[in-house]
Amino acid sequence: MAELYWTPVADLARMIAAREVSPVEVVRVHLDRVTALDPKLKAFITVCDVAALAGARAAEAAVLAGGPLGPLHGVPYGPKDLYCTKGVATTGGSTILADFLPDTDATVVARLAAAGMLVLGKLNMHEFAYGPEGLNGHYGNVWNPWDAGTHRVAGGSSSGSGAAVAAGACPAALGSDTGGSIRIPASLCGITGIKPTYGRVSRAGVLPLAWSMDHCGPMARTARDCALMLGAMAGYDPADASTSVLPVPDYAAALTGDVKGLRVGILRAHFLDVAAPEVRQAVEAAAKALEQAGATLDEVKLEHLALVPAAAMAIVGAEALAYHAPWLRARSAEYQPDVRARLKLGVAVSANHYLRAQALRARVRQEVDAALARRDVLLAPTTPIAAPALGQQETQLGDGPSDVRSALIRFTRPFNFSGHPAISLPCGFTPAGLPVGLQLVGRPFDEATVLRAADAYQRLTDWHTRRPPVA
Amino acid sequence: MAELYWTPVADLARMIAAREVSPVEVVRVHLDRVTALDPKLKAFITVCDVAALAGARAAEAAVLAGGPLGPLHGVPYGPKDLYCTKGVATTGGSTILADFLPDTDATVVARLAAAGMLVLGKLNMHEFAYGPEGLNGHYGNVWNPWDAGTHRVAGGSSSGSGAAVAAGACPAALGSDTGGSIRIPASLCGITGIKPTYGRVSRAGVLPLAWSMDHCGPMARTARDCALMLGAMAGYDPADASTSVLPVPDYAAALTGDVKGLRVGILRAHFLDVAAPEVRQAVEAAAKALEQAGATLDEVKLEHLALVPAAAMAIVGAEALAYHAPWLRARSAEYQPDVRARLKLGVAVSANHYLRAQALRARVRQEVDAALARRDVLLAPTTPIAAPALGQQETQLGDGPSDVRSALIRFTRPFNFSGHPAISLPCGFTPAGLPVGLQLVGRPFDEATVLRAADAYQRLTDWHTRRPPVA
Repeated sequence: MAELYWTPVADLARMIAAREVSPVEVVRVHLDRVTALDPKLKAFITVCDVAALAGARAAEAAVLAGGPLGPLHGVPYGPKDLYCTKGVATTGGSTILADFLPDTDATVVARLAAAGMLVLGKLNMHEFAYGPEGLNGHYGNVWNPWDAGTHRVAGGSSSGSGAAVAAGACPAALGSDTGGSIRIPASLCGITGIKPTYGRVSRAGVLPLAWSMDHCGPMARTARDCALMLGAMAGYDPADASTSVLPVPDYAAALTGDVKGLRVGILRAHFLDVAAPEVRQAVEAAAKALEQAGATLDEVKLEHLALVPAAAMAIVGAEALAYHAPWLRARSAEYQPDVRARLKLGVAVSANHYLRAQALRARVRQEVDAALARRDVLLAPTTPIAAPALGQQETQLGDGPSDVRSALIRFTRPFNFSGHPAISLPCGFTPAGLPVGLQLVGRPFDEATVLRAADAYQRLTDWHTRRPPVA
Repeated sequence: MAELYWTPVADLARMIAAREVSPVEVVRVHLDRVTALDPKLKAFITVCDVAALAGARAAEAAVLAGGPLGPLHGVPYGPKDLYCTKGVATTGGSTILADFLPDTDATVVARLAAAGMLVLGKLNMHEFAYGPEGLNGHYGNVWNPWDAGTHRVAGGSSSGSGAAVAAGACPAALGSDTGGSIRIPASLCGITGIKPTYGRVSRAGVLPLAWSMDHCGPMARTARDCALMLGAMAGYDPADASTSVLPVPDYAAALTGDVKGLRVGILRAHFLDVAAPEVRQAVEAAAKALEQAGATLDEVKLEHLALVPAAAMAIVGAEALAYHAPWLRARSAEYQPDVRARLKLGVAVSANHYLRAQALRARVRQEVDAALARRDVLLAPTTPIAAPALGQQETQLGDGPSDVRSALIRFTRPFNFSGHPAISLPCGFTPAGLPVGLQLVGRPFDEATVLRAADAYQRLTDWHTRRPPVA
């Protein structure tokens, strides 16, 4: 029974449909796990025990009735607490929205419900998704399950999503990613998470940080689980004008396990070359493993990234301020100090600066497109370092000292800026036992190839099956 | 022979294909017309006599060879001088770009060439399309052909396009419309011009004023001519990410002449009610004519337009500045004083103000969508006044005095803001003999209905066949 909380989404769905296990058992096992671990992990803001069990009983009845089942029937998951859930508090990690009860589900929450999934609870996050730090969290600071002794951050802003999945407290989660907030916690917590192409997944009903950089996506233990969830989530939504009408492929069917002839471009300059040695080593080994499985490797250089941090800060600063301005005036004291300070920086951004920052995106997008013209994926570390300790301010990278926040988003934010799909999956551990994340970046709307490469790697390796000491 | 310069595009194309007239004759007649009138009109910045005649001879040869002909084979037209034309000066109405020779055609120029059209010359415009005034034009101030005695403005910024078509100097033109710059000169010059839905026509290779408000479209004597040109121009362009992949209907086939059951919403509040009495009278009569032909009329009110002027100014100011900033620093003295002053206002726009202005667009778009939910088109004047005299600063509207510039764009700019398609066509004359423009606004990507209504009206009336005194 206890092993159920290490079972991937794909297997749970299959077992439930085959009546090998009841969704009630699955939900109960995970709720017990939350009860046991969450006082330390702080991964949940709201636990939906009553609703999840009621949903599980209904799901069980549907199985027994032999009715038509969704592809993810009866499997529980946790949305980050900025996804609107009808009648369930949606705080955005803030106290300002502590009592916000949406009257409708976010589009993707409704789509996952239609696929059969059950909301186990709402997951912790940095206030309004503005920043990866764990300090001063209104709902506690999330504890990374991979170090039972030191309080290490789980990444952010989808820290609760990373920690909950890593600890077996729920089999999957939804994160959101404006500068890396799906991939960074996936990397630091040793799980798999994909930021899809900009426009692939609806953000309707999801609290925004910065609309032109925000992406929604799944986090789970395996690339296959992400593929199943993404297939249920993706596609045009009239409620989100940024979504594309391009058809959604069958992502699960794309997972052939075959990477023969896959053209992989390794990002060494500005990426691997500046990562911590133990990260570099694990990621180089992952590239080698793909090569041995039949992929071809070459090196690729992105030259126009130097201006990305300043431009991305202008864009996120301005867009976040546009959303928060009324609260900043009326309820300024309720923000965490670091979030308030960062929001106020947005005041200094001129429209001219903002628009020139947006114009730079086309150049970076073209450069990434060009790098992918004769390659299928780009390969890099997700983060240059493994999980830092809570409160750690500085770290050392290959090209000098860096504040931890800038270091963590350095490899992920370029692909929020460019809009390309990118996955993070575990590819090893540091000598201290902390997970290392591998990032694969694909062509626009070619999540299928990114997922296929990640799944093939997970068939060759077992990093994604390791269990953290907190468990 | 001379009558060729009053012949619509549709008839010229038919006559050329039927060998009733040679494209060489057509081009020659129009070039003679330019020679005779343009010293006064100042509608052309560049006359492409040699290239147009060479093109006409090649077009003639193709006709005689019985080869496959484009739908607009051999018909000359003039692009506003902000459409890039390979090897032909593209000034944007400025001296800064006086020597700019593009190495490629704008997408729509290439598409019209593929349809068989010939570039007769590049048409005058207000500097960088920033403003409708005619004063201080680097290439002369365009003279509205409808008043041989007084120098009246032709509207703007596509003033040359309006005047050239109105005077019979070319059968059709391309304009661009950021706040009304296709529809205003169409209204003031007594011709027909359509601003398509945002995303319907590529802007690749067209000098921008404000990318989120800019629209490209045709100007000609009839709605049928606009339909033929729009059909050749519209559709997805990988070089312009804002273009839609929606299929392009056969606009000419949509021109059934039938308006039975067409549901027309008349905009009286904020539109007809504040227009000059002679404009109001002509537009009300046009509505009546449509009703007598079988359309149903009701009144509709748009309530959220009060904030549009300030929001549109913030958006255009910021986007224009982002484009012009390098020149404003390095070549400030080369701008006309009014354009320079207006560009500098953009500095004061904060990113926060800009983004909130953009957010207002969704609300206005929804309101116009709602008005069109049970109506096929909205009907209003294009401009509240007929062509003002050059240099006139103030005018009187139904709700008080207004500067002329604000008055001219008041009825058109809301649909740049909302992105809906809108046509202007002549619907009468003031007692002083100046044309009055009727504006019809349609649902997003439903240019077909807008064109059908306009064409049906032109079958009932002959305003579009009147000839100005300058001719």
